[in-house]
Amino acid sequence: MRESLINPIDLRLYGIIDPERTGGRDPVELVRQAVSGGATLIQYRDKQGEGRRLVELARALKAALEGSGVPLLINDRVDIALAAGADGVHLGQDDMHPKDARDLLGPHAFIGLTLKTLEQAERMASMPVGYACIGGVFATGSKNSPAPPIGLDGLGKILSRARLAYRGPVGAIAGIDASNAQAVIAAGVDGIAVISALFMATDPRAEARRLRGIVDQTLTSRGDFA
Amino acid sequence: MRESLINPIDLRLYGIIDPERTGGRDPVELVRQAVSGGATLIQYRDKQGEGRRLVELARALKAALEGSGVPLLINDRVDIALAAGADGVHLGQDDMHPKDARDLLGPHAFIGLTLKTLEQAERMASMPVGYACIGGVFATGSKNSPAPPIGLDGLGKILSRARLAYRGPVGAIAGIDASNAQAVIAAGVDGIAVISALFMATDPRAEARRLRGIVDQTLTSRGDFA
Repeated sequence: MRESLINPIDLRLYGIIDPERTGGRDPVELVRQAVSGGATLIQYRDKQGEGRRLVELARALKAALEGSGVPLLINDRVDIALAAGADGVHLGQDDMHPKDARDLLGPHAFIGLTLKTLEQAERMASMPVGYACIGGVFATGSKNSPAPPIGLDGLGKILSRARLAYRGPVGAIAGIDASNAQAVIAAGVDGIAVISALFMATDPRAEARRLRGIVDQTLTSRGDFA
Repeated sequence: MRESLINPIDLRLYGIIDPERTGGRDPVELVRQAVSGGATLIQYRDKQGEGRRLVELARALKAALEGSGVPLLINDRVDIALAAGADGVHLGQDDMHPKDARDLLGPHAFIGLTLKTLEQAERMASMPVGYACIGGVFATGSKNSPAPPIGLDGLGKILSRARLAYRGPVGAIAGIDASNAQAVIAAGVDGIAVISALFMATDPRAEARRLRGIVDQTLTSRGDFA
């Protein structure tokens, strides 16, 4: 595991693999393809799976990422991250508190947090997390959410508040694909988190290359790489 | 935490508190009543709850049990047990493997396992667990199970196999209440696990006293206390 404060996590193309959203294909193979196409970070999310499957698949994903330099995070379950030797966790606002997760995972693990409101963005100041993800930006079929999408306007507002409270990288999530990735990055975030756009694609490697190209080009024209 | 091999866990009256099965009452208060009536072990099971609630309620239950000598186990989630300082976990066959849970929880935690088949009973020989629970003995409304109840006959068969493979205590679960507790203990197990019979009861303290009385009396007449 890397020191999250020294090496901030690379959110440019954050692929979230969910066994329910692979079109029946092998999650490990899809992740290999996404990483070879340019995914910079992988999260394993599996709300339907029982613990035994979660540990097994997390270990297989970690093994597949060996040598790639791309970290593996686990959604919600700190115990699965520990058992599988993953690089950290991604937490929602209703999951275990980031402070408790930090106590269990130690100082070097990556911990990310989903932000959905201005208040949550302000509270980032006191959170021991390595990155944040703002969502849900657009409507999505990958997650049942009772709240309406925040849109690019909401994204910009929450991002501004987060930037005041917090110095780590901030990404965006929900309904992001090649058609809107440029607008999302132009709004000021450091990367995009994608599920269906990447792992339901016919060719995840080609789609990762395309999305990563859009992200990198937009970051450059925004001046982040100047 | 106690050394599980030196102090085997007391399964006589194992109360499983599930916030969905309290009749709208406070789980912490119900657990206090059950323990004052004679519950020997408490498990917190919460399949619907998100991690934040699980940690908070687990901590509240652990605090309520302080000084009682009654351990608190968490169903399935090793991370919640660690964050809340619980005494261990109870695992189903699809949950994290007991070996992985043992690695995370250490040698002194209690780890229990549900057994539903003869094959699972045989595999107990290689499992680093402190007790087993055989189920589902009778039909129950507390858990959706696709398998038909094993009945007292099935309980006896799985118990015999478990006793050959394994020296720790063995309890029984599913649909057990004051009407059948004597028959269950007479079948040879070391205790009963109860959910609705205890925590949906009008007076959990009185019901715990009644159930504990049946268990102790049957164990005595079976000769375990001779």
